[in-house]
Amino acid sequence: LKIFSLNSNKPLAAKIADAVGVELGKSEVKQFSDGEIQINIEQSIRGGHVYLIQSTSNPVNDHLMELLIMIDALKRASAETINVVMPYYGYARQDRKARSREPITAKLVANMLEKAGATRMLTLDLHASQIQGFFDIPVDHLMAAPLLADYFKDHGYEGDDVVVVSPDHGGVTRARKLAESLKSPIAIIDKRRPKANVAEVMNIIGEVKGKKCVLIDDMIDTAGTITLAAEALKEKGATEVVACCTHPVLSGPAIDRIDNSSIEKLIITDSILLPEDKKSDKIEIVSVGELMGDAI
Amino acid sequence: LKIFSLNSNKPLAAKIADAVGVELGKSEVKQFSDGEIQINIEQSIRGGHVYLIQSTSNPVNDHLMELLIMIDALKRASAETINVVMPYYGYARQDRKARSREPITAKLVANMLEKAGATRMLTLDLHASQIQGFFDIPVDHLMAAPLLADYFKDHGYEGDDVVVVSPDHGGVTRARKLAESLKSPIAIIDKRRPKANVAEVMNIIGEVKGKKCVLIDDMIDTAGTITLAAEALKEKGATEVVACCTHPVLSGPAIDRIDNSSIEKLIITDSILLPEDKKSDKIEIVSVGELMGDAI
Ligand SMILES: Nc1ncnc2c1ncn2[C@@H]1O[C@H](COP(=O)(O)O)[C@@H](O)[C@H]1O
Ligand SMILES: Nc1ncnc2c1ncn2[C@@H]1O[C@H](COP(=O)(O)O)[C@@H](O)[C@H]1O
Repeated sequence: LKIFSLNSNKPLAAKIADAVGVELGKSEVKQFSDGEIQINIEQSIRGGHVYLIQSTSNPVNDHLMELLIMIDALKRASAETINVVMPYYGYARQDRKARSREPITAKLVANMLEKAGATRMLTLDLHASQIQGFFDIPVDHLMAAPLLADYFKDHGYEGDDVVVVSPDHGGVTRARKLAESLKSPIAIIDKRRPKANVAEVMNIIGEVKGKKCVLIDDMIDTAGTITLAAEALKEKGATEVVACCTHPVLSGPAIDRIDNSSIEKLIITDSILLPEDKKSDKIEIVSVGELMGDAI
Repeated sequence: LKIFSLNSNKPLAAKIADAVGVELGKSEVKQFSDGEIQINIEQSIRGGHVYLIQSTSNPVNDHLMELLIMIDALKRASAETINVVMPYYGYARQDRKARSREPITAKLVANMLEKAGATRMLTLDLHASQIQGFFDIPVDHLMAAPLLADYFKDHGYEGDDVVVVSPDHGGVTRARKLAESLKSPIAIIDKRRPKANVAEVMNIIGEVKGKKCVLIDDMIDTAGTITLAAEALKEKGATEVVACCTHPVLSGPAIDRIDNSSIEKLIITDSILLPEDKKSDKIEIVSVGELMGDAI
């Protein structure tokens, strides 16, 4: 069993290797002068069971190509199995044609991984569970919810004075699961645009007045939805709003929005490496290293 | 017949569309806030024969993913055929395992293009013609040599006082072809490293003394080889050295090296778009727009 880290998230890869109790394999992914990816695998992997750790986070195309080229190299070096450990699956939101002539890039990515030679996928909180079906190889789909639940229980968020809130319809199942762990009720934010070109109205389904609200989403990207949701909850009488997500995409104005919002704390995982310039006093990180290591 | 340009080389795409006599299709490839590629195809392409123009030049991974995602979108929008017009094929130098555990990325790229849904390839001066065999779909392999030959003939480089020089063994066939057109002899530069860690010696096979030398290569990347070759030719008594290539990769120190070398003129094609900061008084551009348009 050999574990290799690519470039997207080396600290998490180190934690995963630690949890498994092996050293990370010796390899390096660099660039030639013209930007093409160069790979150096410095140990034999013939006949081995290889685990490749890579999140296809921003820069997504580079991270994806790193992964595909490494899979190709391993396959040609006679690895017995090539297990892709992808804590964050990029392009997951492009999982269907919402409009005419849209690509389904999440499926394209699945096809490319298989074609390159991946023999198994290990991933975490897919934006849609259906993406499992985009693969013909085995997919192990892990959930960070129990880790997030542990965090909240450890910090006294539990029972009837807490409400777990889904920021949209799509996330109700996820909110439900966390709520069960916390033995708390749920609420749902129902965004409606009364007419085209009119600002959205945030309706809240469920009781939040006088309660501590825990917003949960699978990923937070520009943080528009989650920060608006927080304001709506405060307006409806929530005493406190905290938020959590598995995948801290946090692009563009995300950190500013969170810092200036009424969200008091944001709990994220390390499925995506948080760069230095995105650190915030409000953000706390729960590691999925052991969770993923245990699944290997 | 519909021609779409992706982002790598819009001026060339416009020339190709011009040569074919059609308007470029309406489409846009942009990025979401997190760097993922977003595609908008603003016209129906159902049942159509679609040509996609994209060079996988630097940033190669972004340009390749643009292309793959566009192919996916076209396939799902029921295009009848998807013809990839790739003036420059990125990753072409990774076309074999030169060392253990190397990937063969040029083959990976071929597999990805086919898997995404390309039905035909149209490309120009592949680094190795064998890459044609990496595909199971038809590959039209065009050559820029006749265009370069026309340029040299128009500028009086012809006959016995000219020598066409290959900067290495690998390029002799290419030099041979140009030499035939110019009715000139050839010479070959034979780089040898007498011992490890000793500087390379440039031997010249063929007569260059008192002659005008035309160096030819398929691509010029960091320009190390070609500028050293030029110095060696001058030392051996060449009266003038000019150089040409199909693919102006020109990464890193390339422009500085050329500007400071004894190469008097460098003729390139527009297979890769030359950015403003790489323009040089020594560089002249021959367009492959008509050549590629005629092949469509
Ligand atoms: N990287 C991205 N950033 C923002 N929106 C995206 C991204 N990728 C896909 N989408 C769009 O998000 C929608 C799907 O999101 P959802 O409804 O949350 O599953 C689709 O309409 C996509 O076009
Ligand atoms: N983008 C690149 N830049 C520089 N060298 C490369 C690149 N891609 C592949 N190579 C190396 O170049 C060699 C092949 O070049 P060639 O002998 O000219 O066909 C192989 O050893 C590759 O590892």
